[in-house]
Amino acid sequence: MRAFASDNYAGAHPEVLAAIAEANADHAVSYGADPWTARATELIRDQFGPTASPWLVFNGTAANVLSLGALTRTWECVVTPDTSHLHVDEAAAPERMAGVKLLTLPTADGRLQPGQIEGLLARQGDEHAPQVRVVSIANTTELGTVYSLDETRALADCAHAHGLLLHVDGSRLANAAVALGASLADVTAAAGADAVSFGLTKNGALGVEAVVFLRDPGPEGFAWLRKQHAQLSSKMRFMSAQVVALLQDGLWARSARHANAMAALLAQRVTGIAGVEVTRPVQANAIFATLPRAMADQVRAQFPFYTWDEATGEVRWMCSWDTTEDDVEQFAAALETAAAPARG
Amino acid sequence: MRAFASDNYAGAHPEVLAAIAEANADHAVSYGADPWTARATELIRDQFGPTASPWLVFNGTAANVLSLGALTRTWECVVTPDTSHLHVDEAAAPERMAGVKLLTLPTADGRLQPGQIEGLLARQGDEHAPQVRVVSIANTTELGTVYSLDETRALADCAHAHGLLLHVDGSRLANAAVALGASLADVTAAAGADAVSFGLTKNGALGVEAVVFLRDPGPEGFAWLRKQHAQLSSKMRFMSAQVVALLQDGLWARSARHANAMAALLAQRVTGIAGVEVTRPVQANAIFATLPRAMADQVRAQFPFYTWDEATGEVRWMCSWDTTEDDVEQFAAALETAAAPARG
Amino acid sequence: MRAFASDNYAGAHPEVLAAIAEANADHAVSYGADPWTARATELIRDQFGPTASPWLVFNGTAANVLSLGALTRTWECVVTPDTSHLHVDEAAAPERMAGVKLLTLPTADGRLQPGQIEGLLARQGDEHAPQVRVVSIANTTELGTVYSLDETRALADCAHAHGLLLHVDGSRLANAAVALGASLADVTAAAGADAVSFGLTKNGALGVEAVVFLRDPGPEGFAWLRKQHAQLSSKMRFMSAQVVALLQDGLWARSARHANAMAALLAQRVTGIAGVEVTRPVQANAIFATLPRAMADQVRAQFPFYTWDEATGEVRWMCSWDTTEDDVEQFAAALETAAAPARG
Amino acid sequence: MRAFASDNYAGAHPEVLAAIAEANADHAVSYGADPWTARATELIRDQFGPTASPWLVFNGTAANVLSLGALTRTWECVVTPDTSHLHVDEAAAPERMAGVKLLTLPTADGRLQPGQIEGLLARQGDEHAPQVRVVSIANTTELGTVYSLDETRALADCAHAHGLLLHVDGSRLANAAVALGASLADVTAAAGADAVSFGLTKNGALGVEAVVFLRDPGPEGFAWLRKQHAQLSSKMRFMSAQVVALLQDGLWARSARHANAMAALLAQRVTGIAGVEVTRPVQANAIFATLPRAMADQVRAQFPFYTWDEATGEVRWMCSWDTTEDDVEQFAAALETAAAPARG
Repeated sequence: MRAFASDNYAGAHPEVLAAIAEANADHAVSYGADPWTARATELIRDQFGPTASPWLVFNGTAANVLSLGALTRTWECVVTPDTSHLHVDEAAAPERMAGVKLLTLPTADGRLQPGQIEGLLARQGDEHAPQVRVVSIANTTELGTVYSLDETRALADCAHAHGLLLHVDGSRLANAAVALGASLADVTAAAGADAVSFGLTKNGALGVEAVVFLRDPGPEGFAWLRKQHAQLSSKMRFMSAQVVALLQDGLWARSARHANAMAALLAQRVTGIAGVEVTRPVQANAIFATLPRAMADQVRAQFPFYTWDEATGEVRWMCSWDTTEDDVEQFAAALETAAAPARG
Repeated sequence: MRAFASDNYAGAHPEVLAAIAEANADHAVSYGADPWTARATELIRDQFGPTASPWLVFNGTAANVLSLGALTRTWECVVTPDTSHLHVDEAAAPERMAGVKLLTLPTADGRLQPGQIEGLLARQGDEHAPQVRVVSIANTTELGTVYSLDETRALADCAHAHGLLLHVDGSRLANAAVALGASLADVTAAAGADAVSFGLTKNGALGVEAVVFLRDPGPEGFAWLRKQHAQLSSKMRFMSAQVVALLQDGLWARSARHANAMAALLAQRVTGIAGVEVTRPVQANAIFATLPRAMADQVRAQFPFYTWDEATGEVRWMCSWDTTEDDVEQFAAALETAAAPARG
Repeated sequence: MRAFASDNYAGAHPEVLAAIAEANADHAVSYGADPWTARATELIRDQFGPTASPWLVFNGTAANVLSLGALTRTWECVVTPDTSHLHVDEAAAPERMAGVKLLTLPTADGRLQPGQIEGLLARQGDEHAPQVRVVSIANTTELGTVYSLDETRALADCAHAHGLLLHVDGSRLANAAVALGASLADVTAAAGADAVSFGLTKNGALGVEAVVFLRDPGPEGFAWLRKQHAQLSSKMRFMSAQVVALLQDGLWARSARHANAMAALLAQRVTGIAGVEVTRPVQANAIFATLPRAMADQVRAQFPFYTWDEATGEVRWMCSWDTTEDDVEQFAAALETAAAPARG
Repeated sequence: MRAFASDNYAGAHPEVLAAIAEANADHAVSYGADPWTARATELIRDQFGPTASPWLVFNGTAANVLSLGALTRTWECVVTPDTSHLHVDEAAAPERMAGVKLLTLPTADGRLQPGQIEGLLARQGDEHAPQVRVVSIANTTELGTVYSLDETRALADCAHAHGLLLHVDGSRLANAAVALGASLADVTAAAGADAVSFGLTKNGALGVEAVVFLRDPGPEGFAWLRKQHAQLSSKMRFMSAQVVALLQDGLWARSARHANAMAALLAQRVTGIAGVEVTRPVQANAIFATLPRAMADQVRAQFPFYTWDEATGEVRWMCSWDTTEDDVEQFAAALETAAAPARG
């Protein structure tokens, strides 16, 4: 199957699998006291800065729930866009598992503005009101857009000016960084973020994500928080080996750059196909578009993809580290074929 | 490194890695709607019976927390031995994440007796008292012992007679089954258990466990429970491929049988070494022993293992699927060497 | 002090205190197995219907958190207006204590429309999406408006058609009922509601509210849910005596009718005062208005009241069971006095 | 009815009711910004010391759950006797609502010993082990015994030496203090305790308890914790007025002294009645005894009391502020009458 449904339809990068196989020799101390985890920690610090505290977890839900749980006290809340993955696609995990209330704000294109946050702070200190502690943005956003370094910095400055923290859901942080020609540190720590859910799975791992606290010291007791949330891997070396493979010589960036390039190519290639309209700026590896439903259904039978908004029929096409130029060409050709009778 | 510290110091079985590599081709639907997951489900049902509902999760903490969370309502409690992993080694995850109170009972060798449970039921129905809903045992137990089929059946009958359910923490279920010459169904569903945390990681997987509900229908809404607890893998095919590798032609049993055999060999080999006393019945892949602390420390420098009880100095030696006869011989030899001056 | 700040600035009705004093004789079984609680239960069933299951709790937060906790399973969510008390004034208690995610909807005047709910149901059954189980409305609403019987019925029908339940936050249910010339059953059970947080404190009690499940049988295990949430009173007779006083010969209705009448009188009395504009329909015991800030501050020094919206300067004036015509007159006169220089 | 079942079968002291009636005039600011609450706060500080932070809540479950929730971080646990109310009579509220795991220890008479606590600390700092943060004792204990000042001090010193905190469940703290001829500060703050659940309901209130943090500053954010747990009273003046009545001129001590004296009298009076054996030291207002079941049932029909231990038939007789010498005499006479045929 070749699909444009999600970057987690892609498998693991061969170099990631090779790293796992290489780590699979003899015995290693479990739960993270092994050389691969030490190396992964070092590499994450190289990327995010020397004060970064990385903690590997199994998936993105965990990275988000644990980040937010650790950054809030039991009475504190999180502000996030109303389109955020956190709000619409985590099955209420933040509320159920971390106990955090989400306060949501509308956005034009998935990006929060500092002024919006300030509107929620009128009742800070009021015993009856939800208390805001964290602003959580995603970069790239759920709508495929990218916060510029200045935009992230403005949000961080606003948050800090009000005693809040900035969390970045970086499920596709690599795609955002390369889109900006920036480092992972540039888009997070250097832009003022306090913590990041650093996604590696969509970037080519088998399955590993990292909660990275960017300020020294990070939250107390996080080791127990991770253990309690069932996110401490016994054979941790295999999680860490994946991180090493992606970070040690730039595989993360090459993969993200490729995915973004494939999205740009696809956007260019579908321009002019009758009935297809790209609906949002293509800034990373996602394309949002509208097209006639019958046409969408015809193409999707061959190349699966998701309808993003049932009401409007808007669809999402994701490119990944393993999308090929040939995939793009065949997909575009299929759209053209489907468009023909629609025109006819 | 060669160690007798834990069966999760061992890596993944080569057949497991091969299965992952084989699954790593092209795109696959994420979150479990893939052929490997369908096959894993089928294989688990072959093992546990046609009414089994399997749900893959990342680790054993998750399997236990989710099982117990799903089997209890918010006011219900779990009875478990006071030596259980659940009580002493999950960092309070059951209480924190599932909200379940554990009522603990002492045991001679890790095994609960039906009569003990009945002693806790005097206040069922009392608005002020913790209400028991689940009996949770581990097989093998945390002390390396194995419940016979009759012992499990007696506990299940007792539980059911009082409207309770029986959960089996099967982190080392394979070792228990082969020790009894029984199938996985024999030691669980056929013996009356209602749900099992089926461990595959210690048995040779890279990292995957299954919550298996044994009665039809299992708890409602478990899909959301798993998602909320951050235990739904995006690239699920790689979890499932591991299950397939272990179950499809008996790798699970061969590996468990080997680990148990190595433990039996080691027990035999250390008998008669001065200062070493095996303290508990060796029924599966664990040996508990006492020996002089200096002697323990000397050997452990070469072959890591854990002190089980700091107070008494009792240690635990675990064998795994990859323990070799040569490992056993060298370890025993090291004990003998260390014993010599102790005698001298 | 005389205030228009809140109906909980008022004390307890003298008949309520008398009932407490009368109950204070000799010993009574604790935790609700007393004659006053039996009588209170009977009276609540008289009001809400024979299938009603009433449970007394200490305050309105408890009534809401416990209702919603009991009506949802751990993965289920609640839809409510974005102005609801539940969302803006419970300090995130629903999320923290019941673990329920709130999905909020905008309204013109505090009242949800059935069509809005349907817009949230596109992803029912989707493993990744928050699952809606309960629609929670307040009657009277947080903005002082009242759902007609037909409006409540339409919401209940819509909820039921989609397998959902309707919960009514009835912190001021008495005011809504008398405003509609309806019984407590009319505005709840007969209109299709499944559960209600029945408020008695603002209506003249010292402090008692009831969770009332309207369908037979109510949720299982609620006795333990109440106990666990620290809402089971030891000297319950004193809670129940308050309920008896308010319900046994219509004191609840007389008090609510009086409060509503005082609000109507005040609305009429302030009409025409320079600078004062009543901003919302006055349907029960609340008046919302705008007036110059200096004028508001001058009057508030004598008669406390709250600014409802710091941004717009909108204020809220609440009348209660003990507001007198003289209070209204003096308050209006103070507004007139304050208005004079504003005009000058 | 006259009973020896529980001190919460007793009503409210007339002076408490009078104080409530006196507070019931005009309007008062809700949620605690009223003069009665200011006065109650001052009186609690007079009793417990100038660094005490008191927070009124509705009942004893709340006082315990909130104290322990505030003193622990999400991964921390509480040590308590296995007979503690917390463990056996709160329906798992600590685990469910505060998420705290209880680690229980056996005791001879309800009193923990410092040495027992140290036995639980071997794995502090271990990522897999429950982490102890609080030692929670009750004074008087659930078995009617009283910790001496030295015993409390020894526990506090032990706790502090290991970085732990000492919490006192003071549901019957007044009875313990007067039994020792000590002040409320003596038995808590001066003896090293860090927080107390200060019970007033059994002491003669209608219904109010206080969480009192004894060290300056108390836990951050407790106002929101109380609000979220639905323990913030809207008409707080009526809670506070009860506290004022009990504390302002020693009513608390007179009432507790009386209850203790009645228990002493009863203990003396039943000595020598055939079949009755007092089983535990009578140090405050509880008497534990064994007597033939038929005899117990005969007397209980007239004077209700509880069987404490179904297995042994041990019963508990509680005296309260309103137990009279005549009650004691009649109860003892009833025991004698019931004993007669037993002898015959």
